[in-house]
Amino acid sequence: MQALKDKIACEGRNLGSGILKADTFINHQVDTPLMMAAGRELARRFASAQPTKVLTAEISGIAPALATAAALDVPVIFARKHKPITMPADCLVETAPSHTKGHMVELIVSPEVLGPEDRILIIDDFLASGQTLHALVRVVHRAGGAVVGIGAVIEKSFEGGRELLASLGLRVESLAVIKAMDDGKIVIADD
Amino acid sequence: MQALKDKIACEGRNLGSGILKADTFINHQVDTPLMMAAGRELARRFASAQPTKVLTAEISGIAPALATAAALDVPVIFARKHKPITMPADCLVETAPSHTKGHMVELIVSPEVLGPEDRILIIDDFLASGQTLHALVRVVHRAGGAVVGIGAVIEKSFEGGRELLASLGLRVESLAVIKAMDDGKIVIADD
Repeated sequence: MQALKDKIACEGRNLGSGILKADTFINHQVDTPLMMAAGRELARRFASAQPTKVLTAEISGIAPALATAAALDVPVIFARKHKPITMPADCLVETAPSHTKGHMVELIVSPEVLGPEDRILIIDDFLASGQTLHALVRVVHRAGGAVVGIGAVIEKSFEGGRELLASLGLRVESLAVIKAMDDGKIVIADD
Repeated sequence: MQALKDKIACEGRNLGSGILKADTFINHQVDTPLMMAAGRELARRFASAQPTKVLTAEISGIAPALATAAALDVPVIFARKHKPITMPADCLVETAPSHTKGHMVELIVSPEVLGPEDRILIIDDFLASGQTLHALVRVVHRAGGAVVGIGAVIEKSFEGGRELLASLGLRVESLAVIKAMDDGKIVIADD
């Protein structure tokens, strides 16, 4: 997606240790027209898989997941990291290591909103190691549902997440691939 | 907004202590078409105030804020509750008591995305005591920007938030007003 790649080239910053600062357009301030276009493009790529719902992890996944769900006209679920008092006791819970926080985080979904009848498209802002997305896959399987695909706005291909998820037989799509961040550079892959 | 009031009447649950369970359509699973319609309605009500950006607080504010920003075609900022490593040192920080967590939470915005030139529309999922929204107002003022209005999807009018915010001279709009939650009931106000 060229507009996204142009935005990364213009506003993305390499903070070292593989950390991309994208908080002026993705995960603090959101470039709304760009995010809605990203959602439409992800929806277009997965429409034929006929997802019944979109699933993401709070916090930064919510914007791309809602944008994709709006284009598909289906509900979106955001897995909670802390169980709200409004959730039932018997929740679906999986854990994943947090890339930036250095500890394990829980991903919690209520069985009231996810079940065996669901065909789930999983969406997140970043695909890096794939650990969070893999935990979301396990949440869906725990509920008896099917995962019909995984989509990310930005992929850091050098962190191996695509290989992990593809090894599960899942289709993976991303809209911009960063293939290297050595020496302070941000190397964006051609399509 | 009649579709929203119908949804609250159908799926909302009174958990006691003024807590409305709305996690099948607002803050865990999101009814995407309803949320996008709510965003369009909030945008319609505030369009003449010519907001340059929408501001919300993570986590549950993100969906209605993005939906509103999409209709207004402006960026959205979500204030962070924990400072990511991608943020600069000199952030704008205000604190507010958390309704459900029982302690103070920080609301953090980067000065890279909010400044004196901004006309900010503040959006959240719930207007209850108004403390979180008031903290967001203070963040905008700290940046030297103007608040052009405050919009919420659901208002619990018996918690006094509207009076607090209106006393600051701010225009407040909500799409469904719950005027009482005594005795296990959910009493929704007529327009």
